[in-house]
Amino acid sequence: MTTEPIKKNLSVVLVRPRNPLNIGAVARAMSNFGFSSLRVVQPYEKAYREAKSAVGAETLLRDSIEYETLAEAIADCTLVVGTTSVGHREMQHPLRPLRAGANLLRKRASKSSIGLLFGSEKWGLSNEELSFCHWLVQIPTRKEHRSMNLSQAVAVCLYELSAGTQKSAAPEKVPAARAETVDRVTGTLLKALYESGYINPRSENLSEEKLRRLVRRLTLNQADAEVVLGMLHKILWKLNQPEK
Amino acid sequence: MTTEPIKKNLSVVLVRPRNPLNIGAVARAMSNFGFSSLRVVQPYEKAYREAKSAVGAETLLRDSIEYETLAEAIADCTLVVGTTSVGHREMQHPLRPLRAGANLLRKRASKSSIGLLFGSEKWGLSNEELSFCHWLVQIPTRKEHRSMNLSQAVAVCLYELSAGTQKSAAPEKVPAARAETVDRVTGTLLKALYESGYINPRSENLSEEKLRRLVRRLTLNQADAEVVLGMLHKILWKLNQPEK
Repeated sequence: MTTEPIKKNLSVVLVRPRNPLNIGAVARAMSNFGFSSLRVVQPYEKAYREAKSAVGAETLLRDSIEYETLAEAIADCTLVVGTTSVGHREMQHPLRPLRAGANLLRKRASKSSIGLLFGSEKWGLSNEELSFCHWLVQIPTRKEHRSMNLSQAVAVCLYELSAGTQKSAAPEKVPAARAETVDRVTGTLLKALYESGYINPRSENLSEEKLRRLVRRLTLNQADAEVVLGMLHKILWKLNQPEK
Repeated sequence: MTTEPIKKNLSVVLVRPRNPLNIGAVARAMSNFGFSSLRVVQPYEKAYREAKSAVGAETLLRDSIEYETLAEAIADCTLVVGTTSVGHREMQHPLRPLRAGANLLRKRASKSSIGLLFGSEKWGLSNEELSFCHWLVQIPTRKEHRSMNLSQAVAVCLYELSAGTQKSAAPEKVPAARAETVDRVTGTLLKALYESGYINPRSENLSEEKLRRLVRRLTLNQADAEVVLGMLHKILWKLNQPEK
């Protein structure tokens, strides 16, 4: 598997995170989606220590780098993008819905070192922090409840950044049953229905034609059709069996 | 804002969740993306109570419904889709990457009542639970670290379900069968197979689980399912009839 540039060149930058569980969950999502560079600005120290030392903490969390200021954390980045749940801020940043923003980030990733900023759980990114950003992405949440959990927001962003590379290949198709097999299913079912009295030759409550259409609608695959045929043969055999 | 059908007709079904923080975070993500129906199967009781009574718990969490069994939780659903982090299972379920799966779910949503299943934090969905599903979606995570945090997985799925184009394709014409009807078809067929001797209790050449999956693959519509059920009842009645 070749690593896409976005996964190599994008750093997740958590600004003033407060909750060790969130920090741990962010690291897990990064590992899930194959991102490895985590930077943490002015974390609540106790939370950060706790998260780093948690049993099963991700390697990338242990390798994460702590910074005193946001400016230092993004010093080497050539593109800085903020995440926000709020549509309107005082600043006049271009605001892109996540999908469009992610497309643009992927295009830029081979040439740029990218910082993707996430603000603190409570307040998001401050205006001062936003002023370091070239533009912003917004996850399209409901306007009555915009603000997402930090680690979920990170997961959604990294998913979208990865998703452009999703194999869109159709799921493996199991071969459909051959018409001849389907007809044998119909024929055997018809016999069983006569034997059981479900179909009464006089009143004809289900014609052969209707039955054939019904069986067609089942869209059996070949393997299933053969199993069903086996079932019906056995049932038919039993129906014809004289009681001992 | 008009509510898209997917947000009205899809229920998030948590199967055996263990962690109150996860349950709360799932509810928050649902609220963020405008989904409202939460069903919980056999939760760890203490966790569920804690999550429901947490300060600031989402209304939709308070309104969530608890079920004893998965079968009950999805009884009214006409389409049941499982989420999995693992690519290969024994079962022959179609497995769709999330984006393709979400597109399909949105197309089906105007006519179907959909259950989207998430397994427990530790083990995901069991094979038995998977056997209730028509197909599966998979979030494309790194193969070295497939398994996502529960609430992040829910957030990513609901994001993707919301993110697509608003336009929904032509709805299907015939409503799919309700899970409860499909279960009755399976149950009655099973009895007939025992009666006929197709299934030998000792050799067990076809387990109930396999049979349930086979019947799911038939993608019966409601009308056909009822016809098939009538056939099977009659066949079963006849099999049980003493010969005159």
